[in-house]
Amino acid sequence: MIFTVSSSKHQELIDITDKVNKILSESGVKEGICNIFTLHATAAIVINENYDPNIGLDFLDAINKAIPERANYRHDRIDGNAASHIKAAILSPSETIPVKQGRLVLGTWQSLMLVELDGPRSDRKVNVEIIRK
Amino acid sequence: MIFTVSSSKHQELIDITDKVNKILSESGVKEGICNIFTLHATAAIVINENYDPNIGLDFLDAINKAIPERANYRHDRIDGNAASHIKAAILSPSETIPVKQGRLVLGTWQSLMLVELDGPRSDRKVNVEIIRK
Amino acid sequence: MIFTVSSSKHQELIDITDKVNKILSESGVKEGICNIFTLHATAAIVINENYDPNIGLDFLDAINKAIPERANYRHDRIDGNAASHIKAAILSPSETIPVKQGRLVLGTWQSLMLVELDGPRSDRKVNVEIIRK
Repeated sequence: MIFTVSSSKHQELIDITDKVNKILSESGVKEGICNIFTLHATAAIVINENYDPNIGLDFLDAINKAIPERANYRHDRIDGNAASHIKAAILSPSETIPVKQGRLVLGTWQSLMLVELDGPRSDRKVNVEIIRK
Repeated sequence: MIFTVSSSKHQELIDITDKVNKILSESGVKEGICNIFTLHATAAIVINENYDPNIGLDFLDAINKAIPERANYRHDRIDGNAASHIKAAILSPSETIPVKQGRLVLGTWQSLMLVELDGPRSDRKVNVEIIRK
Repeated sequence: MIFTVSSSKHQELIDITDKVNKILSESGVKEGICNIFTLHATAAIVINENYDPNIGLDFLDAINKAIPERANYRHDRIDGNAASHIKAAILSPSETIPVKQGRLVLGTWQSLMLVELDGPRSDRKVNVEIIRK
């Protein structure tokens, strides 16, 4: 099952917890694991707090300091998004989460988020694969 | 199956390999995969060498240099742990490991560890989900 | 199923997408998930673009700037590869990828790669575990 996410900024965290829980609920699977995988080399999937959305902004600032957007990257001669690729490779395109009672098992402060690293884009694809226990 | 880990420092790596192997052994599953997931937004799960525990200290020093504990983070105005959240999001709350003969398939130098990033805490929850092949 | 990869440099990204797809094809599994796990504490598995191999070189430069190869690490007194361990722990030894029609579900620009962080080595082991849906 693949769904699509739109981003409106160059970099942005987009909460997809509810979308994935809806797909889980429709699947009828009550217990197992759920793999959430984005099909792009300049986006990623992370889990963290979204109750204070400033955490997402702090997160982007911090990774941009650790991995600068511009640093004479070789790939920037072809396509100006080397830093987006590097950050996506470090963060990884997927998370695998336990499932109980037909829902993602997440802590109180955990949300599932797509990290847009080279937006805005209208067509970020996310695959949800559910494995029954 | 959820178990609890206590930490005694602000930042610390805690080896949970034996705990997870015991849960695996009790499950009776011989072959498949095992997802280890911590239910917190300021802790993470990593795999690395623990034979020389200095590697864990070097690891914490290095991530604290790459992502400083203090950097005028917005979230620090509310709760002084923005850096803990950022590091947890980068490291990710889980690992998925193959299972053979009822045990985690790990290399000689690989241990499974909880990374405490905002301790000390007495109640770090870790979910273990085992999927039979 | 374990296969072996040889590296020829100290640090290097090695594309293993075709090897894993061949193992998947031979398994006969058409739908599910595939866990690719390297059994080492100084190597990692990542997913990113390999059409322009300069991205791999930019990636290595960027992580070497964020996590320097030398920084008075404690573990370097015993074995000169603390930085390799630290990078491996951050990048993680595995990826879990959806499977459809007997192949890895990857985006157009996504390749599966072993990251050698302490080479050259002739014997990097990669375990492939396939779980049927």
